[in-house]
Amino acid sequence: MADDVLLAETTRGGRVESRHYGAAVVVDAQGGVVFAAGDVTSPVFPRSTVKAFMALPLVAQGAADKYALPDAALALACASHQGEPAHVAVATDMLGRTGRDYTALECGTHWPLDTASARALAATGEEACALHNCCSGKHAGFICLACATGVNPEHYTRPEHPIMQTMARTLTAVTGAPHTEENRGVDGCAIPTWAIPLSALALGFARFGTGVGLDAEHAAAATRLRTAIATNPFMVAGSGQFDTLVMQDVAPHALTKMGAEGVMTVALPTQGLGIAIKCRDGGIRAAEAAAAALIARFGKLDSPNIQHFMRRTLKNWNGQIVGELRAAAELAGAHLPAQAN
Amino acid sequence: MADDVLLAETTRGGRVESRHYGAAVVVDAQGGVVFAAGDVTSPVFPRSTVKAFMALPLVAQGAADKYALPDAALALACASHQGEPAHVAVATDMLGRTGRDYTALECGTHWPLDTASARALAATGEEACALHNCCSGKHAGFICLACATGVNPEHYTRPEHPIMQTMARTLTAVTGAPHTEENRGVDGCAIPTWAIPLSALALGFARFGTGVGLDAEHAAAATRLRTAIATNPFMVAGSGQFDTLVMQDVAPHALTKMGAEGVMTVALPTQGLGIAIKCRDGGIRAAEAAAAALIARFGKLDSPNIQHFMRRTLKNWNGQIVGELRAAAELAGAHLPAQAN
Repeated sequence: MADDVLLAETTRGGRVESRHYGAAVVVDAQGGVVFAAGDVTSPVFPRSTVKAFMALPLVAQGAADKYALPDAALALACASHQGEPAHVAVATDMLGRTGRDYTALECGTHWPLDTASARALAATGEEACALHNCCSGKHAGFICLACATGVNPEHYTRPEHPIMQTMARTLTAVTGAPHTEENRGVDGCAIPTWAIPLSALALGFARFGTGVGLDAEHAAAATRLRTAIATNPFMVAGSGQFDTLVMQDVAPHALTKMGAEGVMTVALPTQGLGIAIKCRDGGIRAAEAAAAALIARFGKLDSPNIQHFMRRTLKNWNGQIVGELRAAAELAGAHLPAQAN
Repeated sequence: MADDVLLAETTRGGRVESRHYGAAVVVDAQGGVVFAAGDVTSPVFPRSTVKAFMALPLVAQGAADKYALPDAALALACASHQGEPAHVAVATDMLGRTGRDYTALECGTHWPLDTASARALAATGEEACALHNCCSGKHAGFICLACATGVNPEHYTRPEHPIMQTMARTLTAVTGAPHTEENRGVDGCAIPTWAIPLSALALGFARFGTGVGLDAEHAAAATRLRTAIATNPFMVAGSGQFDTLVMQDVAPHALTKMGAEGVMTVALPTQGLGIAIKCRDGGIRAAEAAAAALIARFGKLDSPNIQHFMRRTLKNWNGQIVGELRAAAELAGAHLPAQAN
């Protein structure tokens, strides 16, 4: 995009080595634009960032109550997890409450993204299954929703299935952007993903964080999901992950969610704002740095992990510092730490 | 960089999802620029792309002969390998010929980059060691060079060590660009890396591929290394890797090498050309797509893997096609395949 702005850059030997460009926007729950950099109106695929929006019907339609889902399960329904044992246990439990198991999942199988967990699993001689898929909690949520509302969950990932029709309606309501066949793609876990303006994605998070602009059922569900996420940041991502570390520091004042291909979103309930970032090249490291900068600046928040992700040292395999990754000064302003940490 | 050009883009649901920008240059062995797109004069860190240049002294100073290093070992000295058992075996053998073992390596330890090999290693209950580091072959080469020439290899990664001084002189001779303290950084494996113009990096590969512009010893060493690489493409990278797959198809007519942070280089000996690409954001997938395009266009080469990396389908965890990754039409011209494969 011709009008993309610098989001973050890496250095080595005191020189810039790589640069990431993209767009970022901060809006309030009425859709007022508080900050915009780059093209924030062209459609982008939100990917996994909207999992919390997709969990609203799980609560609003009574499935969470029917199956007495604990907050950890609600958080996992909003998660891109690392396939660590605790994640797998909660996903297994969610499915078990419907009388089903991992064979009901249609997300596909991959080994745990947490490499230590993958090696530990391999050491047992077992194979990965769909429970280890980073989206298994969201999919378990879909199955809970289907079973609780009398819908056959089979083929729940298909666009024409009632569950995915519910998702399209919910996402339209929360973001204000249409979710139709025209702007639909297929996500990594087989469900649809719809391309929407970055500003609409940010608006969705301003609404999710405040309830303003949502109907009463969605507003109540958002309140419950915010608590579940804020009290279970490990469930939302996992060891060493931005979302887990930053939310351990500052939730519920910032609720963050990464998405594939360099998308990051943040709800700032205390400030009544939503943030959406797209790193044009798909680089998540830059989207994280930009998100940390905007959380500090517009969330008026500070913490060790916010500082770390805004400006952090890069080390080689011997632990030697070789450079740094830092958010663009244009985003961070005076909040950029004086040195990497 | 304001004048970066589109290198490659990904699509999803028929829309562009992500875009990668950067620079690319094709030069002949006299330094004549055949093609240039973007900023090809500002310094970039070549990272692992110059390993073959760093292996020239290993041959030219007699270490390869003294230790009777087979071609597989010479190829591994030029490699960023995946830590697969065959790579580890050759690195172990190289060190053994000097009477040393993995404890002499100063590259640091990481688990095999090939995930199946990492899991297989974990299943044995063993831990990773420096032999699994993707640079262990290069480092074993440094140790062979030191031992063969009567230099104590200890601290061979430090800039002031005689081996690294030899590397700086060799890289200066091959690329024509100065390698001094001023443009020096530290690489991931602890040795220095020097930022040089992208055009100088390409010139080095035109010279390496032809011998033109090299002194007699380096020219002879380059001939031997080209044969070693062309006949051992698996040693240079590993399972599923661009360098291995493309060279299995078209070596010795194209000798390719990836580097960290989105750098790709190619020698086209038959055409007498060298190629260097920097994806500004560090994205290797885009540098690979661009390299495939320029190999087709300026190397006058075609193969299944060249077509695949130029324009390939992207699949989700269920194997469903969700989009494609394609080189920019501005780079590929008429060589861009009509559809992804």
